[in-house]
Amino acid sequence: MAALKRQLEPREVCTDPAVLSEYSKDKWFASSLPDVVVFPRSTAAVSAVLRFAHRHRVPVTPRGAGHGYVGGCVPLRGGIVLSLEKMNRIKEVNPADFVAVVQAGVNTQKLQETVEKLGLFYPPDPASRKESAIGGNIVSNAGGPRCLKYGVTRDYVLGLEVVLADGAIVRLGGRTHKNKTGFELHRLFVGSEGLLGVVTEATLKLLPLPPFRACLAVGFATMRAAVRSLHAILSAGFLPAALELADQFTLAAAYKRTGSERLRGCRAHLIVELDGQPRSVRSEVRQLKRLLAPQRPLFVETGLGSQECEKVWQIRREFSYALRDTGLTKLNEDIVVPRGRLEDLFDFAARLQRKHHLPVACFGHAGDGNIHTNVMVDYNQPGAKERAAAALDELFRQVLAWGGSITGEHGIGIAKQRWWPLAVSPAVRKLHRTIKQALDPRGILNPGKFV
Amino acid sequence: MAALKRQLEPREVCTDPAVLSEYSKDKWFASSLPDVVVFPRSTAAVSAVLRFAHRHRVPVTPRGAGHGYVGGCVPLRGGIVLSLEKMNRIKEVNPADFVAVVQAGVNTQKLQETVEKLGLFYPPDPASRKESAIGGNIVSNAGGPRCLKYGVTRDYVLGLEVVLADGAIVRLGGRTHKNKTGFELHRLFVGSEGLLGVVTEATLKLLPLPPFRACLAVGFATMRAAVRSLHAILSAGFLPAALELADQFTLAAAYKRTGSERLRGCRAHLIVELDGQPRSVRSEVRQLKRLLAPQRPLFVETGLGSQECEKVWQIRREFSYALRDTGLTKLNEDIVVPRGRLEDLFDFAARLQRKHHLPVACFGHAGDGNIHTNVMVDYNQPGAKERAAAALDELFRQVLAWGGSITGEHGIGIAKQRWWPLAVSPAVRKLHRTIKQALDPRGILNPGKFV
Repeated sequence: MAALKRQLEPREVCTDPAVLSEYSKDKWFASSLPDVVVFPRSTAAVSAVLRFAHRHRVPVTPRGAGHGYVGGCVPLRGGIVLSLEKMNRIKEVNPADFVAVVQAGVNTQKLQETVEKLGLFYPPDPASRKESAIGGNIVSNAGGPRCLKYGVTRDYVLGLEVVLADGAIVRLGGRTHKNKTGFELHRLFVGSEGLLGVVTEATLKLLPLPPFRACLAVGFATMRAAVRSLHAILSAGFLPAALELADQFTLAAAYKRTGSERLRGCRAHLIVELDGQPRSVRSEVRQLKRLLAPQRPLFVETGLGSQECEKVWQIRREFSYALRDTGLTKLNEDIVVPRGRLEDLFDFAARLQRKHHLPVACFGHAGDGNIHTNVMVDYNQPGAKERAAAALDELFRQVLAWGGSITGEHGIGIAKQRWWPLAVSPAVRKLHRTIKQALDPRGILNPGKFV
Repeated sequence: MAALKRQLEPREVCTDPAVLSEYSKDKWFASSLPDVVVFPRSTAAVSAVLRFAHRHRVPVTPRGAGHGYVGGCVPLRGGIVLSLEKMNRIKEVNPADFVAVVQAGVNTQKLQETVEKLGLFYPPDPASRKESAIGGNIVSNAGGPRCLKYGVTRDYVLGLEVVLADGAIVRLGGRTHKNKTGFELHRLFVGSEGLLGVVTEATLKLLPLPPFRACLAVGFATMRAAVRSLHAILSAGFLPAALELADQFTLAAAYKRTGSERLRGCRAHLIVELDGQPRSVRSEVRQLKRLLAPQRPLFVETGLGSQECEKVWQIRREFSYALRDTGLTKLNEDIVVPRGRLEDLFDFAARLQRKHHLPVACFGHAGDGNIHTNVMVDYNQPGAKERAAAALDELFRQVLAWGGSITGEHGIGIAKQRWWPLAVSPAVRKLHRTIKQALDPRGILNPGKFV
């Protein structure tokens, strides 16, 4: 420890018990105390920490804003928590090159607001963007509603500065929007959950900011009508920025919270967001309304422009709060099904609910099949824990049987570790170990996790 | 050899000298004879070839349609050329899930036509799509004009079946449009130029087919006006499907070939393609014309609908033919500059031309800075070879100094091997070797190439 302290400035090292406790967990429930939290302020300092840890075989768990949902940055083996939060400088926003160069600790929303002032656009929009850091978004390959049209974090990472397990610093990729120089090694670190290296800086691709956006919020009497509407939209050649769906349990909770009369009797709710040139978006909104009419929506609310769109998205946010209001523990599983299985998933969730006597609330990014399936548990009820475990197990097995994925944006972390062997074959797990062994031969990076 | 033949069907193995010669090269000029060409018809056969090669340490060079431009599939160390061309089945196109499952040897254009009949869209459009295979597109991460809006091949690879160097078969990724299960290992094989494994099958993401497209072809008196137009389009929040630029040398050759009067005096030529809903696209075409007016274009030609668009793109194709008509050898370098450096690049190319007494023709995917810079050489002229080498060297050094890339879509192969150490640091080269060593410890896959 003294040796580590010599490498860093005093303010970069902390062993205060309150701080250790704060950095023992993320937004999931698991926790494990580290021995020390370091707050490096430069890539050189990150490198020094890793050289030290590599030499002494000390576990290092990198940490962004600590806003993950799967315990990914819980330091299971103690050792060092390496927080990137003090490396929070936006180093460059270049409107001619359409790139931003940012340190790993930069807040996602801050980056978005900064580039939008210059007419530029950084699309990835995880729900946690107010609190999350770009570095965390990168190692978890964060998604969000807009990813339907715009892709996930990975698609915006042009280059990375990474500190490897032994402290070596590499700059991978570059700043051009196209690049075929060697292997795509920068993207190997995207979504690597802190197991392969520490991302210290990213060069991100920016797009022209679409000058206008509009939203439709549509209520339906049946989930079938909502899913048919979704397919009708895609079949007409639309690729909306977002297509979000919520089920009847979610809506019932939202009705209870908001008292909004029209949510009564509403058993499915679809949000469609379009963006682009104002005249085009307005004409497409009219076209969408005509397209939805045959499915007999209960109501169609239109939001034109950013301000009105935000109001529509506020409804979506109320869904989350409403589920919290139930007082139940929400096991939020970000499963993904092939798009053709959406209706099957909602049916299956309803059956799970009856079978295990647990409410199941589904809502999320229906456009790409990524439905957040929330199993709601009252742990005071006898047998609730076992029933919840059984329900999750059935859910994941069914999702995999459909060719789906057990996680679309949260990652494996600790939360999904149990289903990792179910989700991938022994050969694929072996390949993960091969890559891990090559990049971190002493196994110091985020040990105890899924690989 | 007898042992290898026992593993395969007779028609899967060939040692005919004419065939060996045909499979000794791609579209670049280098060649090297293999000892045998195998044409496996199943993943099991590919696995058998690799198990054999791994045991006996025989070089294996995987090959798609042999349409690369950098000698990537030239078997430099002899041994086995493993052609995927007989694995050419489209196994599934699923309009509900928006995915296609294809073997590596499937022709790119055939896939596109097949899915478009179902209202689906596979956007990547390399110039060679009539001849190229999806497997080749994947290992070279092929691009094309439409990649400005739609991204490159990588962005459509949801899952891969890969045979590893020791013959193990792994299925990586999946069929959902979002997936955060483990590392993004499937994408590690995208762009790996046959050095890490053999791609046998891919699950590709499809989009809704945009129902309408339109093109503008615009002539300018100066390159500056063309580049300003391009920036004006992006600044207005447009992200066109394509933004293609051609310079005066290219246009002069095209004038000579086509006799088209209006190309006379035209020193820059811009193609803009838009796609989407018909009404939106038509209104945006009008908007673009107003946007371009201040740059005083010499002419604006509009193509509405696919048929008229194809006519506009025919002009673009004529550029290539026109350069071929010059009788000079075209060294086509697919460099990329940060978008803000476009004008600098055209200026630099003009200076190179004067300095080395070699024509330099620039045209290409200006939207993402990926300008195909063609150094035109008459090898019968004394000193031409040396002057060409010096010009390329200066070009690549300048591009790198601007933060650009030496290749945007063709890859390193043999052609760019000389500049590989210039393009990436020793630490990055070491990381490439680490990954290569982990996945192909005996170095049998495509040996002699850049890693």
